[in-house]
Amino acid sequence: MASGILLRVPQVDELRTANERYAATHPRRPLPAEPARRLAVVTCMDARLDPARFLGLAPGDAHVLRNAGAIVTDDVLRSLAISHHLLGTQEVVVIGHTQCGMTSFANDDLRGRIGAAAAEVDFLPFADVADAVRAGVRAVEASPLLPDSFRASGFVYDVATGRIDAV
Amino acid sequence: MASGILLRVPQVDELRTANERYAATHPRRPLPAEPARRLAVVTCMDARLDPARFLGLAPGDAHVLRNAGAIVTDDVLRSLAISHHLLGTQEVVVIGHTQCGMTSFANDDLRGRIGAAAAEVDFLPFADVADAVRAGVRAVEASPLLPDSFRASGFVYDVATGRIDAV
Repeated sequence: MASGILLRVPQVDELRTANERYAATHPRRPLPAEPARRLAVVTCMDARLDPARFLGLAPGDAHVLRNAGAIVTDDVLRSLAISHHLLGTQEVVVIGHTQCGMTSFANDDLRGRIGAAAAEVDFLPFADVADAVRAGVRAVEASPLLPDSFRASGFVYDVATGRIDAV
Repeated sequence: MASGILLRVPQVDELRTANERYAATHPRRPLPAEPARRLAVVTCMDARLDPARFLGLAPGDAHVLRNAGAIVTDDVLRSLAISHHLLGTQEVVVIGHTQCGMTSFANDDLRGRIGAAAAEVDFLPFADVADAVRAGVRAVEASPLLPDSFRASGFVYDVATGRIDAV
């Protein structure tokens, strides 16, 4: 995985150009680190999802955690513990989505493609997104890193309609 | 961590109301799951960061991964392996930010606050965000789950100005 100037592609230049345009309009009013709505969102990395837009979140409102599948992994629990204990969030919504790539493969498919380095890796595919979201909510509820008062609820986002439905 | 109807607070109702407004304008043109710009972004969960806006990303452009600190954990490498091998991304940008909460505590502070359940947990705090981003880029480059051709670069986002700077 090479980096460095020789392998830099226009992608990075495009991001910098877009960022310069953004910075010209960046609000000068500082926001606190603590999320104003005391909310955390866990959702998928999927490129079609823009949780700030589909949940109506303003800058400063909520922590947003994203990984492949919106799965409540140990890394998500680490992040939620920091979110709650240091930055005051009181609630998380776990949001999976329809047409998720995580339903399209089995561990052995991906292990076969990557080779020996992946032999012991669980890529956490799932068959049913609503079940996966419910498991995520239960993982939050069961975590000893978060108090009983920390609320969790689950939703599925429909990539065709943009709607979230509770699970 | 209780969930369920009795403990539902207005927060969830507000999210649903905002989502109904969003869905009325959701584009009816379906987007493919594969990110159009073959790009993945790893950044922090911080509520002040809206990577789609500060990088000029359109829906469908890029996978977005977020956790506490923009740290390239095993969960991020799991997600990037899926992103690359199944969904065709060729490049990642790792973006930390100024005023990150991860520089404000030590593991023992948080362990003391949470108690015995956290005694073995590394919350991954860091002293310098640029160093942390460089470590993340190196973790991508060193991962056997990704090919040498998968590019990685690192940036720090300034929450005061909205600008990204390469590290």
